[in-house]
Amino acid sequence: MVKVVLIGSGNVAHHLIEAFAKNQKVDVIQVFARQKESVTTLFDSNKIISNYTDLADADLYIIAVSDDAIASVSEQIPFENRLVVHTSGTVAMNSLDSKNRKGIFYPLQTFTKNKAVDFSQIPICLESENESDFELLNKVAQSISNTVFKINSLQRKALHVSAVFVNNFVNHLYQIGHEICIENNVPFEILKPLILETANKIMNLSPKEAQTGPAKRNDTKTIEAHLDLLSNENQATIYKILTQSIQNNGKKL
Amino acid sequence: MVKVVLIGSGNVAHHLIEAFAKNQKVDVIQVFARQKESVTTLFDSNKIISNYTDLADADLYIIAVSDDAIASVSEQIPFENRLVVHTSGTVAMNSLDSKNRKGIFYPLQTFTKNKAVDFSQIPICLESENESDFELLNKVAQSISNTVFKINSLQRKALHVSAVFVNNFVNHLYQIGHEICIENNVPFEILKPLILETANKIMNLSPKEAQTGPAKRNDTKTIEAHLDLLSNENQATIYKILTQSIQNNGKKL
Repeated sequence: MVKVVLIGSGNVAHHLIEAFAKNQKVDVIQVFARQKESVTTLFDSNKIISNYTDLADADLYIIAVSDDAIASVSEQIPFENRLVVHTSGTVAMNSLDSKNRKGIFYPLQTFTKNKAVDFSQIPICLESENESDFELLNKVAQSISNTVFKINSLQRKALHVSAVFVNNFVNHLYQIGHEICIENNVPFEILKPLILETANKIMNLSPKEAQTGPAKRNDTKTIEAHLDLLSNENQATIYKILTQSIQNNGKKL
Repeated sequence: MVKVVLIGSGNVAHHLIEAFAKNQKVDVIQVFARQKESVTTLFDSNKIISNYTDLADADLYIIAVSDDAIASVSEQIPFENRLVVHTSGTVAMNSLDSKNRKGIFYPLQTFTKNKAVDFSQIPICLESENESDFELLNKVAQSISNTVFKINSLQRKALHVSAVFVNNFVNHLYQIGHEICIENNVPFEILKPLILETANKIMNLSPKEAQTGPAKRNDTKTIEAHLDLLSNENQATIYKILTQSIQNNGKKL
């Protein structure tokens, strides 16, 4: 069994604790949480520590804390030459303190506390400073996920930017659609099957092939009618810019 | 059985023919198609007509043609005082010729030819000029869908604008994500589970509750790093505007 220590008590740490609990290849021997109560429902409280000097010997230390805290947490690990990874999509591998061997263990998903996830479907992106450490990271990742990728730091950065577009920004467009419905007394429920189908469609088609709508058709009459209906200036600005981008096929404006 | 004539041979017509074929409450007695070949695989070719003078007596005529053609098609129906509806999300009910009783039968979904849809999950939005016609429309809609809504023309227009945001624009953001992946040698596959989860998440949470990411967190460092990576000016413009909109919580800029 690979011995793992998890440092953190946020969403990612919670979901990792649950995922590892179910498997026979990885043994989470400790969880570090500044506030023990935040993980006691998930993990044996005798193995929860809140003092770095209590950290036990392990094959792998996974730092799952907020981006800003990664560097300082990695400095406080009282060992040398251990394998220490973080779970962030944006923070550079080199932000980890150099006294230990560095790596990345980045599960690419949007985690919500109290919402169960099927970790086997979540891609995990791995990177390691030393080739020899990759094997161990791969073993740990494969024990919980069916899709594991070797991704370098530049690729990971690009992935994270893409994720902002397809997750954060997409969700914001859902919010705008929601607001337009509320303003016009229409149940947002009506749009939910469309939202699911829009996502499902690109599982087999490229987004370019899947594109439909007035912008794609250059249907100026409909575009003008839509802009007339949007009383909110912010919504109109977004409508115009995305319409123009579709019309230019994503090329430079 | 309600006797229905379907006018049109595009995506919506195709999917309606297939949906009605399976049910016992509606009898599609004719399909009007300018080019018979376009529907012969789906429908008894003896009942396909391409001349308006061949139109038979029916309880309901459904015009499923492109927005621009709806008015002229409705003029060419050689009857009076029949129930005639169209399937468009944008065209006004009053675009239909006044010699017949008007209505709307708008299935809100993105249809792709040759991609099967489960019509029972597709919301159908109905409107009728006369209250007495609503019952028949409702019966026809309920025969193929589990979610039928009474929606007036203004609400339908708002729905369509919302649909542009949550479908057309969302798909365009998928395309941008796809392009960023290609430019940086990252498999777009990695993002697919995230895309599905983003859509699934708002089935139970409001989009506002589901919002995450650097814009929401006001994480200026990450936002700047992302803008650095975007070499395409169009992508950068969209990134900035959507980030600002999230930060302003969708309020006027």
